[in-house]
Amino acid sequence: MKLNGVEIEDTFAEGFPMRMTRLLITATTQRWAEASAQESKGLGTTAVFCPTEAGIEGPRPTCLETPDGRPGVFLQIGHQNKEKVLRWMPIRIRHCILSVPTTALFDAMPEELDSKPIEMKETPPYLFGDVYQEEIQEYGRERYRIPLMGGWFKMPRRINMVKGVAGGNFLILGETQAAALAGAEAAVDGVLSVPKVWLPAVAGVFASGSKPMDEYPWATTNHRFCSVIRDKVSDTLVPEGVGCVFEVVVNGLTTDSVMEAMKIGIRRAATVDGVVKITAANYGGNLGPYKFYLSEVL
Amino acid sequence: MKLNGVEIEDTFAEGFPMRMTRLLITATTQRWAEASAQESKGLGTTAVFCPTEAGIEGPRPTCLETPDGRPGVFLQIGHQNKEKVLRWMPIRIRHCILSVPTTALFDAMPEELDSKPIEMKETPPYLFGDVYQEEIQEYGRERYRIPLMGGWFKMPRRINMVKGVAGGNFLILGETQAAALAGAEAAVDGVLSVPKVWLPAVAGVFASGSKPMDEYPWATTNHRFCSVIRDKVSDTLVPEGVGCVFEVVVNGLTTDSVMEAMKIGIRRAATVDGVVKITAANYGGNLGPYKFYLSEVL
Amino acid sequence: MKLNGVEIEDTFAEGFPMRMTRLLITATTQRWAEASAQESKGLGTTAVFCPTEAGIEGPRPTCLETPDGRPGVFLQIGHQNKEKVLRWMPIRIRHCILSVPTTALFDAMPEELDSKPIEMKETPPYLFGDVYQEEIQEYGRERYRIPLMGGWFKMPRRINMVKGVAGGNFLILGETQAAALAGAEAAVDGVLSVPKVWLPAVAGVFASGSKPMDEYPWATTNHRFCSVIRDKVSDTLVPEGVGCVFEVVVNGLTTDSVMEAMKIGIRRAATVDGVVKITAANYGGNLGPYKFYLSEVL
Amino acid sequence: MKLNGVEIEDTFAEGFPMRMTRLLITATTQRWAEASAQESKGLGTTAVFCPTEAGIEGPRPTCLETPDGRPGVFLQIGHQNKEKVLRWMPIRIRHCILSVPTTALFDAMPEELDSKPIEMKETPPYLFGDVYQEEIQEYGRERYRIPLMGGWFKMPRRINMVKGVAGGNFLILGETQAAALAGAEAAVDGVLSVPKVWLPAVAGVFASGSKPMDEYPWATTNHRFCSVIRDKVSDTLVPEGVGCVFEVVVNGLTTDSVMEAMKIGIRRAATVDGVVKITAANYGGNLGPYKFYLSEVL
Repeated sequence: MKLNGVEIEDTFAEGFPMRMTRLLITATTQRWAEASAQESKGLGTTAVFCPTEAGIEGPRPTCLETPDGRPGVFLQIGHQNKEKVLRWMPIRIRHCILSVPTTALFDAMPEELDSKPIEMKETPPYLFGDVYQEEIQEYGRERYRIPLMGGWFKMPRRINMVKGVAGGNFLILGETQAAALAGAEAAVDGVLSVPKVWLPAVAGVFASGSKPMDEYPWATTNHRFCSVIRDKVSDTLVPEGVGCVFEVVVNGLTTDSVMEAMKIGIRRAATVDGVVKITAANYGGNLGPYKFYLSEVL
Repeated sequence: MKLNGVEIEDTFAEGFPMRMTRLLITATTQRWAEASAQESKGLGTTAVFCPTEAGIEGPRPTCLETPDGRPGVFLQIGHQNKEKVLRWMPIRIRHCILSVPTTALFDAMPEELDSKPIEMKETPPYLFGDVYQEEIQEYGRERYRIPLMGGWFKMPRRINMVKGVAGGNFLILGETQAAALAGAEAAVDGVLSVPKVWLPAVAGVFASGSKPMDEYPWATTNHRFCSVIRDKVSDTLVPEGVGCVFEVVVNGLTTDSVMEAMKIGIRRAATVDGVVKITAANYGGNLGPYKFYLSEVL
Repeated sequence: MKLNGVEIEDTFAEGFPMRMTRLLITATTQRWAEASAQESKGLGTTAVFCPTEAGIEGPRPTCLETPDGRPGVFLQIGHQNKEKVLRWMPIRIRHCILSVPTTALFDAMPEELDSKPIEMKETPPYLFGDVYQEEIQEYGRERYRIPLMGGWFKMPRRINMVKGVAGGNFLILGETQAAALAGAEAAVDGVLSVPKVWLPAVAGVFASGSKPMDEYPWATTNHRFCSVIRDKVSDTLVPEGVGCVFEVVVNGLTTDSVMEAMKIGIRRAATVDGVVKITAANYGGNLGPYKFYLSEVL
Repeated sequence: MKLNGVEIEDTFAEGFPMRMTRLLITATTQRWAEASAQESKGLGTTAVFCPTEAGIEGPRPTCLETPDGRPGVFLQIGHQNKEKVLRWMPIRIRHCILSVPTTALFDAMPEELDSKPIEMKETPPYLFGDVYQEEIQEYGRERYRIPLMGGWFKMPRRINMVKGVAGGNFLILGETQAAALAGAEAAVDGVLSVPKVWLPAVAGVFASGSKPMDEYPWATTNHRFCSVIRDKVSDTLVPEGVGCVFEVVVNGLTTDSVMEAMKIGIRRAATVDGVVKITAANYGGNLGPYKFYLSEVL
């Protein structure tokens, strides 16, 4: 299949279920909500070693779309292992949201999804209040407020967790690093047009792709896609004339949103001159139950 | 003591030693170096629960000042516990620097400081190369290169760690939240004028200050500085007329740099109308060996 | 009238008609569209001396919402004098949009508004093509393309101009500069939640307000609102206890959108502690035909 | 000549004298200084139609390096025609600096350069004070202060103008748009490492290059460098295999600084894979007296 002259490989991205929460951070100004979201997303590119994955959705809610009428940002946090979310999400909240001037926190899980509530009592942000935290009602919701030097920090009593979808992905093969990167950056803006999806990579683009290993370190460089060692890898997957490969990984609350985002991202990447091929990473279906065939996605 | 009409309390900030590394991230463009540094700094506001503290220095090196002639950012990573640095710094490198398009890594510890090298062999970024990583000489240094889909990632064989200084701090008491925050933001730009210091807080400003506790959770809200519960706290430290308090915490490689940064930060904060008092947090000298008396610092 | 304890003066903002165009700048990435829009908006804070006013709308269209499927920014350009728009808009396009890597231009005037087309033939961007520009059909529209070193620049053959509304405004009076500015910044994010409105001021906030004068320089400092010379101005409008005033000026395509934006902006400003009063600037109804009474707006 | 495998054409960039001023904008926070500088730089990409050229220097002065101890930005404004600077610089100050919250203005012309003072009395920013502006002494300098709603705006009584150098330039020819743009962006960060130089283009990169014409419109697309019409231009300068060209124009206070900046910029561009050739624009020496031969610059 060709898109805009770019070869689209007949393969699939292999997705897997991930426990996810969707938070809304609001603040007095958009700037503080962004700063908080950025720190909260940090050290969140992969669930392998990092304390959960995390990412920021593209479309920002305006003051007309948040419960407290303030500007905000949607942040998603996820891990395959539920326990990791239960452990690290409260720490991300305590140290990257609660500690930031003027912020407030809301659960932003869409009601129509099948979710389970995480009780925030007995977690670090709640316990931080010592004995001074309080239960309040606000905007028709049950919430807590924790006294800080900078004012009250308000947060939900429960945060909903769903079984979302991780590992939607595509690889962009370019003649040069510049072409592959321009394709990836175009793709990222496309992906971020779709609500409820997020990108674990820094600015949405992974320079490093990995392959599963049997033993530690279980994930190592996906050498078959490394053009710089193409001559040393007999079963290389780097075609002649390809100088660089970048990967865009897409997570989201639903398979539909991930597929929609992949579609727009791939289409955007295929408009960039010097992008010669787009494929996807999978592990023969051993890693996860979702198979996003590029031909179907498009 | 008064500065610009603002009361400077006769007290001290209580600092403590912290193991720190100083990294230089370079990239093809300043933008990618910043993006990598931002992710690397993430989830790094405190050593209590976070996987180390981390922060970005203010002055950026230009292309004339880096080994590879590319734009860059200085990132510092630290923890009281050496083992935590040994564990988490390589993970921050692996997942927030190595994985980012076009980046390279250098050790940027000043030679004149007494440091110990951390060998990067057998750490996640090195091991990520599977069997394809190589030892190279570059810019007169011993380095590794790891093959990625996006090109070679180059990094030092050793990263130096020093015993730096954490916990330099000052509290800004304002009539209103806006005044205290404007004072804190002015202070942050002042602090970031000084090389080799860094701020663990998001955008440099903590809305939450903590007090040590005997048992878990060992750090809870510093209730004596919380204006919103002033009426409930008999030994409150919030003076009449103070509506809000923010804290600026300063870490750095040396006591001199931390003190210089505190001086400039406090002076900047004291120029803001509505800031009524500046003090510092200490625990009677039980936490750490460094006492930064505000009167001496200024 | 009181809002959140803040006095809302019983007065009106005096608006006036302004000829406006609404442009959509798209680019390969959001970043280049933003850079182009920022330059295009430059030197555009007032129609008095500047070559037209200009401003960027808050909500950005995603790739799903633009004709060419690329990320974009809405830019508005306006002046009371139609001739000024006819002269300067093409120059802004030629030198701040056409000259920027990967950009394209679209007319984004809503169809339901009563507008008049400006023919772009014989204007600087078209003439820049020497003899190499071409008429094309794209996305069902009549367009031009101009050859550049960096590729084709594509633009509409006609850009629609309407009689929009300028001079919607409110003044935020604060105890301190910090409080007034925090109120203004909160207001700006509120205003920017509303589509089709724009703010001529830098980051939306004017430190300087002006009064009309009979002779040159016809606009000088609105001394009655200057707290720093309060003691010298016998008919000052600065109440006791007010240390600073900032102004938010709102322009837009329709009176409805301007009023909606004023409402949200004022409400946001009134949430900031230290903001004591909100009023509006008018000239007794001599300047313009639109009277936006704050009580009605809210 | 080859640099990193990239052909450097044996030609020269043709520079010409430009009257320039160098301003320092300071503010309470770096953020407001940046916002003011950005607006001040707007509509400043060329002296042909725009109201002067304008640009921001790369290195920012810290709080330790400005007269008022606040963070700041260096902005340069220039035009071949002295009268244009005298007319438009005060308007840029009045409407893009004075009007911005918390800003102050300083003359930042290096003393060692041969400059002439522009008296700021009788200019728009001074006259804006109506009758309330005052002469003051500050930091050992003669200054004015103008009362605004947001506080005093302070500015120098005189701003020095020199005969600087404009038109330093180089063209980056790439296989693809992505490669040429990556080369140009790398070059820009290199150029911005050098103090006292500035880039008139948006983000430093021109997609459009122009050739002089005998009659109006005197500057039209440099068709010989347009790859998209390569087949129609018999004397094209676009080599086979080149898909795109971008230009970096460098202005500065001295020939030395411009040449240093060109050197670093070209070296950075030549590191980007897919950049195939670097040349420079000149008009046979008819436009200006400065000839920056690429071989000498490097």
